[in-house]
Amino acid sequence: MSKLAASLREAIVKSGLKDGMTISFHHHLRNGDYVLNMVVDEIAKLGIKDITINASSIFDVHEPLIKHIRNGVVTGIECDYMGKVVGDAISHGLMAKPVIFRTHGGRPAAIDTGKSHIDVAFIAASMADEMGNCTGKYGKSACGSLGYAVSDAQHADKVIVVTDTLAAYPLNDFSIPEVYVDYVVKVDEIGDPTGIVSGTTKITRDPVGLRMAGTAVKVIEASGLLKDGFSFQTGAGGASLAAAVFLKDVMLHKHVKGSFVMGGITGFLVDLLESGCFQSIMDVQCFDQKAIDSLAKDSNHVEVSASHYASPFAKSAIVDSLDVVILGATQVDTNFNVNVHTNSKGLIMGGSGGHSDAAAGAKMTMIIAPLSRARMSLVVDRVQTISTPGSTVDVVVTQRGIAVNPKRPDLLEKLKSAGLPVVTIEYLKELGEKINGIPKPIHMGDKVVAKVEYRDGTLIDTIKNVIDD
Amino acid sequence: MSKLAASLREAIVKSGLKDGMTISFHHHLRNGDYVLNMVVDEIAKLGIKDITINASSIFDVHEPLIKHIRNGVVTGIECDYMGKVVGDAISHGLMAKPVIFRTHGGRPAAIDTGKSHIDVAFIAASMADEMGNCTGKYGKSACGSLGYAVSDAQHADKVIVVTDTLAAYPLNDFSIPEVYVDYVVKVDEIGDPTGIVSGTTKITRDPVGLRMAGTAVKVIEASGLLKDGFSFQTGAGGASLAAAVFLKDVMLHKHVKGSFVMGGITGFLVDLLESGCFQSIMDVQCFDQKAIDSLAKDSNHVEVSASHYASPFAKSAIVDSLDVVILGATQVDTNFNVNVHTNSKGLIMGGSGGHSDAAAGAKMTMIIAPLSRARMSLVVDRVQTISTPGSTVDVVVTQRGIAVNPKRPDLLEKLKSAGLPVVTIEYLKELGEKINGIPKPIHMGDKVVAKVEYRDGTLIDTIKNVIDD
Repeated sequence: MSKLAASLREAIVKSGLKDGMTISFHHHLRNGDYVLNMVVDEIAKLGIKDITINASSIFDVHEPLIKHIRNGVVTGIECDYMGKVVGDAISHGLMAKPVIFRTHGGRPAAIDTGKSHIDVAFIAASMADEMGNCTGKYGKSACGSLGYAVSDAQHADKVIVVTDTLAAYPLNDFSIPEVYVDYVVKVDEIGDPTGIVSGTTKITRDPVGLRMAGTAVKVIEASGLLKDGFSFQTGAGGASLAAAVFLKDVMLHKHVKGSFVMGGITGFLVDLLESGCFQSIMDVQCFDQKAIDSLAKDSNHVEVSASHYASPFAKSAIVDSLDVVILGATQVDTNFNVNVHTNSKGLIMGGSGGHSDAAAGAKMTMIIAPLSRARMSLVVDRVQTISTPGSTVDVVVTQRGIAVNPKRPDLLEKLKSAGLPVVTIEYLKELGEKINGIPKPIHMGDKVVAKVEYRDGTLIDTIKNVIDD
Repeated sequence: MSKLAASLREAIVKSGLKDGMTISFHHHLRNGDYVLNMVVDEIAKLGIKDITINASSIFDVHEPLIKHIRNGVVTGIECDYMGKVVGDAISHGLMAKPVIFRTHGGRPAAIDTGKSHIDVAFIAASMADEMGNCTGKYGKSACGSLGYAVSDAQHADKVIVVTDTLAAYPLNDFSIPEVYVDYVVKVDEIGDPTGIVSGTTKITRDPVGLRMAGTAVKVIEASGLLKDGFSFQTGAGGASLAAAVFLKDVMLHKHVKGSFVMGGITGFLVDLLESGCFQSIMDVQCFDQKAIDSLAKDSNHVEVSASHYASPFAKSAIVDSLDVVILGATQVDTNFNVNVHTNSKGLIMGGSGGHSDAAAGAKMTMIIAPLSRARMSLVVDRVQTISTPGSTVDVVVTQRGIAVNPKRPDLLEKLKSAGLPVVTIEYLKELGEKINGIPKPIHMGDKVVAKVEYRDGTLIDTIKNVIDD
């Protein structure tokens, strides 16, 4: 008995995939992913139509989806993040059915509870044995953690592992066990290594970014949270990474021994582990080669599922134990709502990812962003799209001042006492508008092109189509 | 937020446990387990009645169950194995409802598919953090793998982790993640280390056992299965362990590089791994300290869930890839059916455990047992209890000859060609009866005291009460 299918086509046919079904993908291969396009091309060749794609994220490399939406092969998309290429097309009304945006915690929650049904899950694995035990840690297309694929594997009716490196049975260090896998397909390449990792992630050299990063670390110090057991999440943006570097110096200087770091894992977070600042990295996704290498060799660098990372319906998730998260924003409004879905033109170019999950869980959620974005004020009266509700955001750090959410008078007091440049959110709005002017309204149509679900599955916002002037 | 309950009592109350519910336990603490008794005592004190216990195994240490059955606290037992103390009481008609016997693969299959519902699972873990990430690998009561507890954790309505060693959050090397855990209770001791491990497991010194072990290895050689990629399972009986030691010599001599060993893991199987005979140990349960130490330190010693080990309803289990298994028997009949549930007096003193799972999966299933057991013939016309169907048994090895199942003429031919002492199963029966005499019938009553489910959930046999003469 072996689960090896002779080809992707054979595996798809054996899976029983039919018109109207939902297939799923994870995004650990990021902009280097070949698997989603490969599968959808094959489905198109088989004459199958009306497919919904439930992918943890859609990247620009998935541009061929536009063609497959036009030809009726794909009629639905559900994801946690959508890059600007497909996002632009969706925003211009490409698809009849609205995209459903979830979060990295809300997606597995919906799958685990049966709200999101997956007929066939495709799991891109850089190494697998012929019974389906598989991993992303090893092989020529190594991507690190496969955390986002775990719920798909556990709950999809059929599971197809697509790999480019077969291991002898049994693969010892599996992330997903054979118990969930129906078929294994060996292809030449599951991805382009230069797109899978973002090269070496770099900290910002921009003086504005560096200043914000420095301020962010001062806010953490002033918050009182920076003590033994401290836990921290940050994204892979240049300023966030700079904050991680500055934080390391402070922790070493103050002899603070943290518990865990989390988020998309980069070499900078690995440095925090290896320098002894933290006991553990909890890893749902690797961003660079250093992170992948660390996950494969360091037992304190732990792969976790997306549910474990952030599901609101798990009995607990790691975000529930998080002290501080540093997050980005394209817009923040005076109610502290954050937009990471749409850009200054109203076009889809992102998504929550783990943004609102970490914000909901962390004891202190900090947004760091420059006062001006694309020559528009960061802070506005009402964000174009609510990605993360203001009730879960505590501080907004800009290069021109720090605004504290009025619901956190305790924190305001601490930051003031520390002599930090605290201002009101309205002040930041006025300052941003003074510099950039008041933006003219975006010309939106009436068609709902995307629904934004909060992590608990409730509708938090809708995104309408954009009409080019 | 912490899941720590102040006491076991508090955790039970918070779990909402009520009359008529089902609670579950795993048996990795074996005859050193304190947790099952502790929980049932507390339930009794709370005045809760009519509880069904679904435990992967019941050991002699669980004798207090007899009292709790008499007083109506416990009215149902489901397990894969039952030691002779509780078994004797059950066989004498202690309980109104029949015990349900499953297998180590059938139990998680029933839980995973929803056939077996667990209201509250109790997970004895030798180390846990306060959010419920837990393991059996570390701590003063380390027991190794927690494989049998995984399905319970995944599917029970409420999950209570009982530990005697709290770790700082997050416990990196968790076997069961917090996502499944409701409450964590710290107690003084979860078990008696001398009962958790069987001391150092020992190979037999009995010349009959050694001869059978030698023959078993010759059968493996003759079968043609002993080549690179070879996989092997054996139990912890003295003759089986001797076979493992002899097998190691043969594999080293012949430069055969095996894939995996499996079963209850002992130091002898660790030797097979460390000597390079095998690439991996797949471990659902540790039997001794050397196995526990190896699991904690050797990345080629892999903890697996009971579903991964043996579930017939998983998309595949490791037993499906197994070449050879060596198993014991209290009785074998001329149709090659095997009894491991009841003794010569018809009393319950065991259970399938993984017996019929491995037998169903392996390319060659070998029973090794002496011709006489308790002064009765091993081979009989009809076993007292069918634990493992003869259709899944290939060879019976005794000290006086080897019987091959007629459904395997290919194997018969190979063993004959190798000059091995092949006889018929009927010959073994006659020889056994000549030595031991024909046993007088056991005096059984009409009450069904246990139902034996085959791994797929179908009823394979029933066990009646025993009437003492």
